[in-house]
Order: sequence, then C-alpha cells, then structure tokens
Amino acid sequence: MKTFDIFPIKGGVCAPSGFFADGVSAGFKPNGALDVAFIYMQKPCIPTAIFTSNTFCASPIKHFYQEVQGKESNFVLINTKNANALTGKEGIEDIKLYLSALKERFPQVQNPIASSTGVIGVRLDTQKLIDCFPLLDLNARGEESAKRASEAIRTTDLFAKEIALRIELENGEVFHIGAMAKGAGMIEPSMATMLCFITTDALIPQEDQKELLHKVVKTTFNAISVDGDTSTNDSLFLFANGVSGAYDKEAFERGLEIVMKKLATDIVRDGEGASKLVRFRVMGAKSEEEAIKASKALSNSLLVKTALFGCDPNWGRIASTIGASGVEASEEKLSIFIGNVCVYERGVICFDSEREGRAYEVMKKESFVITCDLGIGEGEFSTYACDLGHKYVQINSDYRS
Amino acid sequence: MKTFDIFPIKGGVCAPSGFFADGVSAGFKPNGALDVAFIYMQKPCIPTAIFTSNTFCASPIKHFYQEVQGKESNFVLINTKNANALTGKEGIEDIKLYLSALKERFPQVQNPIASSTGVIGVRLDTQKLIDCFPLLDLNARGEESAKRASEAIRTTDLFAKEIALRIELENGEVFHIGAMAKGAGMIEPSMATMLCFITTDALIPQEDQKELLHKVVKTTFNAISVDGDTSTNDSLFLFANGVSGAYDKEAFERGLEIVMKKLATDIVRDGEGASKLVRFRVMGAKSEEEAIKASKALSNSLLVKTALFGCDPNWGRIASTIGASGVEASEEKLSIFIGNVCVYERGVICFDSEREGRAYEVMKKESFVITCDLGIGEGEFSTYACDLGHKYVQINSDYRS
Repeated sequence: MKTFDIFPIKGGVCAPSGFFADGVSAGFKPNGALDVAFIYMQKPCIPTAIFTSNTFCASPIKHFYQEVQGKESNFVLINTKNANALTGKEGIEDIKLYLSALKERFPQVQNPIASSTGVIGVRLDTQKLIDCFPLLDLNARGEESAKRASEAIRTTDLFAKEIALRIELENGEVFHIGAMAKGAGMIEPSMATMLCFITTDALIPQEDQKELLHKVVKTTFNAISVDGDTSTNDSLFLFANGVSGAYDKEAFERGLEIVMKKLATDIVRDGEGASKLVRFRVMGAKSEEEAIKASKALSNSLLVKTALFGCDPNWGRIASTIGASGVEASEEKLSIFIGNVCVYERGVICFDSEREGRAYEVMKKESFVITCDLGIGEGEFSTYACDLGHKYVQINSDYRS
Repeated sequence: MKTFDIFPIKGGVCAPSGFFADGVSAGFKPNGALDVAFIYMQKPCIPTAIFTSNTFCASPIKHFYQEVQGKESNFVLINTKNANALTGKEGIEDIKLYLSALKERFPQVQNPIASSTGVIGVRLDTQKLIDCFPLLDLNARGEESAKRASEAIRTTDLFAKEIALRIELENGEVFHIGAMAKGAGMIEPSMATMLCFITTDALIPQEDQKELLHKVVKTTFNAISVDGDTSTNDSLFLFANGVSGAYDKEAFERGLEIVMKKLATDIVRDGEGASKLVRFRVMGAKSEEEAIKASKALSNSLLVKTALFGCDPNWGRIASTIGASGVEASEEKLSIFIGNVCVYERGVICFDSEREGRAYEVMKKESFVITCDLGIGEGEFSTYACDLGHKYVQINSDYRS
C-alpha cells in the first residue's frame, strides 16, 4: 500500500523548482548582519496564507488583503527589526512606496508581498530598505542563498530554521516542498506568532492548498507555545508554482505535516531562553476541544514552565493547571505520567522517592513528553512548549524586540 | 450627607470584639517558624465563603462543603507547607482525624473549619499538627497574637498581610472589620489564589454578607494577577459574630472595600519576585465585560510583565496584547497612557524620545497606572498586576511550593 517516498534534502525554500531566494543586509541589524530576505518565483502563483488573529494585524497583512489576495504574485520581501505594526495609514503608504521602488527596479516583479517582523509602533525606514535593492540578485538560488534568506528573517532566534523534502510518487513523478520560518518570542497556541514561508513545485489545486494548510496548522503552529502572546504579524504562506507537474494529495499532506511539525517544534526549541522542548499530551478528555483546552493551559502555565526549567517533577502543579483550565475532570479518573513514569494514578498518589528520581532523570533531558489521561472520553491533543527560565526574562526585559 | 467615619486601627483579625487568634510552630517550616494559625470566636456564626474555581479543589474545601456549610462554626485551623490537595478520600479523612483530636482537646470548639496552603499532592502529617494543639491558647487576642496568626499563614510571602478598621456610624454606634491574608504565588484574576480571613463584630444580616462579599471580590481579589494560575486552595471567609450590635450596609461595604483592596494589592505587591505594582485601567470598552477581558489579558501577558520589570515603555506590546485579547478595538480609536504620558493617541504614534524619557521615569516607580482607552463605549475595569523578573523564575524553579 506504500504509494510514495519522502526524502529530506538540502536547499530550503529554493529546493522546489523555479524558486529563488536570498538574504542581504540593509543595515537594520548592526554589524552588517543579514536583515532583508526575498523569495522570487519565475512562475507567479496565487498564494495561500493564514494570518494572525490579533485585531491589530500589521500593515503588511492589511496590504496583502487590500492589494494581493486572490491575485497571482511572484515576490515576497521580508524585513526584520521593524514589524510595521500599529503604524496606521502611513504604515500601508510606506509599503506601497517601497514596493513601487521594487517594481521599478525589477520589472518582472508582479503583485509583490511585504512581510515584516520586529518592534511594534515605529515607522519603517523605507529609504534604508530601498537602498538595499541593488543588492538583491533575483537569480540567486541553491542551498547557500536559501540559507542566507532563512538567516535574514531571524530576530532573537538563535538558529535559522529551514527544511526541504523531495517526495517521490509511486509512478516515479517527483515534487518538492521547501520552507523557512522565524519564531523566538510571542509564540502562542492560536496561530502562533511567527513568519513561515513554504514553497512547492507540486501541481496542487488551490482548494487543496487551503484545506491542507488549515488542517496541518492546527496540530503544528497552532499547538505550540513559548509565552502565550499572539503577535500582530503572524503569517504563514504557501507558494505553489506547479512546475513539477506532479501531485498526490496524501503525499503532499504527509510532506506538509513533516515540514510544519519540524519548523513548529524548532520554534519552541528556540523559544526565547528555552532550554527544553516538552510535549503536553492530553488524552481521555471528553472531546478533542477539551483536550486542546487542557493541553494549551499546560503549555501556558508559568508555574508548570518554571518547574520544567528547574527539572522539578511537581505533578501537583500539572494537576492544578488542568483543574483550573475548566475542562471536565475528576481526581479519581486522572493519571499523570512524566515520560513513562506514572506520578499520579486515578486519584492515588504513587509518587515516592524512587519515582521522583526517575521523573527527575526524564526532566533533565532536552525533550520529553508529559501525559495527562483524564480517563473520561476519547479526546486527545498534544501541544509543544518550552520551559521558562532566566534567559526569557533577560531577553524580554533588556531588549525591545 | 456624611453618615460614618472609618479609622484604621491595629489588631488585625482580633480587632473586632469576640475574636481570638494566634500563630504557633508545629514544625512544618524549618527553624521553629510559625506555621499553624487559628481563629476562635466565643460566639459562633455561620461563615460566608468564596472558594477557588479550580475543579480539583483541595480537601479542606471539600470538607467545608460536606461538614460545615450552613452551620454555625467558631473555629478555623490553618496550616502551611501542605495544601492537602489532590489527596483523595484520605485527605478528607486526615482532616476529620485532626479536627476530632482538636474537639477532644477543646470541647468549646464547634464545627471547626480546616484551611491549608502549601505543596499539592502530598499527605499531611496529621500527627505533627495534632502535636501542636497543646500550644494553642484559645484566649489569645490583641495585636501581637493577631500578628503571629498572619505570620503563620505565610508561605513564600515576604511580609505578613493584615488590616483592621474601626467604623463609627452617625448615631455613635461602632463596629470593626479585621482581616489577614496570604498570597505570593499562583495569583490569578479569577478568584485569585490566596487565603483570606475577615472578621467583624458588625450585626450584618447573612444575605448582606453574601451580597457584599461577592460584589467587592470582583474588583479586588478577582482583579489581581501574579502569574495567571488559579490554585486548588483559594479561600475567602467572612466571620460576623454581630456582638457590636451595630450595622450600616453602606458603611460596611465601604469598610469591606478598603480591607479587601488593601490585602489584594498587598498580595500583588508581594507577588513572587515582584518589584512593582501596576494598575491596568481599561476604559472606553464596548462593555464592562470587554474591559475586564482586556485588562486581564494585560495583567497576564508575559511580554508586558517582563517589559514592566525592565522599565521599558514598550507600548507596542500593550497594544498587541489588547489586539490579541479578542475585544472589539480599532487602531484609530485606541489611546495608551503610561502614567500621565500619552504614548499612542487614536492611531497616531506620539512616542518621541522626550515622551519615552518621561514614560521611563514613570515606570521606575514602585507603582503606577497604565491606561488604555479603547474609545468605543463606556466599559471600564482595572486589574492589578506585578512585573515578572528573575526572582519569580528563581522561586518557582528552585522551590517546590
């Protein structure tokens, strides 16, 4: 019944045919660090996108809705250090200004998309951005330039996040999916705060793009938490140029899952000040909705996240957080596992010093699973979160990001 | 139109006539620190109480519902270091055991109430508790013994929290309100996590007790946040013995407001690792409910709380949090003030370096107000929160509380 093979490859967003990308320095970041990236497609496509649920969505998102949505586009320009959010009408005028200058310089550019991340509420220095256009090489492609693009979109991210897959169908046809993302702070489990750009040469119908992107986002970017904040700029784009001529829905969905799960967990792993990645698996809930509610409460609890940081198998805080989340639960039906160590079993405290020692060993690891079985129904959901340590406080009190 | 006078006095929970209290050491805390407190009333009364909304409410709360609710009681026994929560049937049996021993030793004790705070999910050492009963002096009253009681209920609280008022009515009649509370961690704006015991000799009808306690809790204990967690043990008690023979509803409500606002803000000010107390005033919301939603979002945002710690007038984070809270809002109508410094006015960024300097000076203070005017309706609400600094992380990652 095996109908396809999936192979990880190099090349990020440039891995699919027909995609070009690069990162350059416009001087927004100090010391000549890369801070502006672009993706250019020889063959334009109608992008599929999911944006932040924040009421004050940033100017680039407003601009997309006004000028690009439903149209064919072949260019995305991304800047860091300034989110161009809460900047009013001027924020949109600024985008129109620099995108005009871009089209003037590169006549092949069609309905370009702006994307920004950085400080909120400060006008963008459009001249600085325009001045870097001569550095953009629209023929740039390959592993190195894709890597530079993923470097350029970083803010407080400690490492660049990219992935690419080669998907081979049973009939020998091949398509690719590539992607890059940035995360770090303001990551919340409701269209997590981040920028993510996915490219593919699969011949995927527009309706499948929408369906699959929304389906997979639920268990990936919408299931992660760094600090419970939803930013003004969250954006997820899928660009499909169809040039491979190949497509299989099941294979594409599987590939998309791998790509988005990898980038989502990379974002958590690289959460501001994070030292570990924890999966909160809630099962036995009354419904999937209730499982989502409980696991999101766990991944957002300060007391749980500081206990993770301290490797403290304080299951009382886990139970208390579930109790406070408002889901249907009872002490007599609840069981809690840290890794494979049962620390509370259907109302019975089974937490002795031997189990405490084993649970502590689990929590010292870089990643592990905490399972809460509510013992009521069939609802199950997992969220991914990082711990909360001193570095988070340091980054967010010292740095205006 | 002035119908009463309110004077702050000393004496905490012992200030009203007929109330006795003390704190002793049972050995739960190290070095002989006070860890068990009691309140004894010569004249029993039916207590009015509000408890946590956590599904897994602690054994003392279950015991209260089962054994005390609606009955006259004259005794509360409070222990620290162990919450007796998530301890199942044994947790309630433990309470019955030690309260039986208490009644055996003190035949005058009637329907005693248990109250606990501390670690979750560990059986209480009942013998240790029973062994301290010989230390309890049911005739203890006055300033010093009330102070010891308020000391004994502390966990990670840095200072003991108590207050007492003398209320003189126009006709010369006098009644008193006294109270003590503990807070520190797990403080959330939805029946905040804490223990609070209010005593009064006012002749207040049972129905007024319930009405006023629920009314005042909304703008005090339910409007504060340290870390967004709701504990298993939150309890607020009002004991009214009526022995003064005096009562005036308006005067009592005003006194209750002063008492509960003082203790609620003391709890925030003493939040784990807190260095400042901030009032988030949201006005101009579509409704009071929307104002509550927005101001609670602000007082729970990690990004806002770390910016407070860093004295960073990062109004973009404030605006973004309001945008993420789901309330009706628009950039063109929103204004934000840090203290009296307007940093964003109806869609216009007015944040220059002069205003930034003034806002920074405001934020260096020990307490200040951040005002967000949504400019839409008449809804207004204020919450009180502390900043989030390194000490919170240290306390909650190093210490199993």
